[in-house]
Amino acid sequence: MNTDAKKLVLRMIPYGIYVLTADDGAGNVAAATVNFVTQTSFVPPLIAVGVKADSGAYAVVKGAGRFALNMLGKSGKGSAFTFFRPADVADGKVSGHAFHPGANGAPLLEAAIGAVECTVRTIVAEGDHHIVVAEVTEAHLPAAPAGRPQAARLVRKALGATVFTGR
Amino acid sequence: MNTDAKKLVLRMIPYGIYVLTADDGAGNVAAATVNFVTQTSFVPPLIAVGVKADSGAYAVVKGAGRFALNMLGKSGKGSAFTFFRPADVADGKVSGHAFHPGANGAPLLEAAIGAVECTVRTIVAEGDHHIVVAEVTEAHLPAAPAGRPQAARLVRKALGATVFTGR
Repeated sequence: MNTDAKKLVLRMIPYGIYVLTADDGAGNVAAATVNFVTQTSFVPPLIAVGVKADSGAYAVVKGAGRFALNMLGKSGKGSAFTFFRPADVADGKVSGHAFHPGANGAPLLEAAIGAVECTVRTIVAEGDHHIVVAEVTEAHLPAAPAGRPQAARLVRKALGATVFTGR
Repeated sequence: MNTDAKKLVLRMIPYGIYVLTADDGAGNVAAATVNFVTQTSFVPPLIAVGVKADSGAYAVVKGAGRFALNMLGKSGKGSAFTFFRPADVADGKVSGHAFHPGANGAPLLEAAIGAVECTVRTIVAEGDHHIVVAEVTEAHLPAAPAGRPQAARLVRKALGATVFTGR
């Protein structure tokens, strides 16, 4: 395989920046930056999320069977870096960020420009990130975005050239 | 569920435009525009593609067990619309577009700015689009893009506000 071409061609796929959160109700809370996300079905609304298989967040999501995907806006660059680190909950905040629990218990970040709550349907345990396939059960949009929703979001390139790129 | 919020929040996920191609070696050729795509693993390199479950392209990809994902560049808007229709092969072209077969037999479009060849690993048969999880086995980059690879690609919004958006 032409590995240089593989790296460059795969980088043509655009990505957003999201914070995946979950709370298993037994004291384990996840809040991790992810970027491998796509919707996969309209009816029912399904998404697929690639989650690093050896991460704490993956273990919590798998155990809880439900999670939230928080969308970061253009001002969310700092938040993206915060959630590269393992999550900690203190003073009612997760990794220093205010939140409130969603209907499924997952933390909804106050800083997010939108969020979907999801129930895990299937996990494909292949690769260094496993594929969590989940149904969207609720959605939150604190303020309607002006113009196209895509224009409001933080995109991967805003984090710099070395973040989240293929090897 | 707040369905209006669901629609808008899911539209915050960015998408590229791709032509999924396959040839099962038995006379069935697929070439269809898709946009539900994400990488899901670095090692091995895996991608997940949502493919409309009742489409001819899905049947061919499933039967062939291998396919190519052709990346459309900024000048590929017309190609995107062409491949919304079922593919036909005539005069050595697929739906009027010149191609050559990849190592796995899948048509590589001359008009593409890059392509990856893939072998299907798993299919998650859930939703109106099924999730084809596949390993990248080869990659083609006719000309190295100037700047970030993402900047060269055609994005969904270029097709207009009503194309490929959630319901």
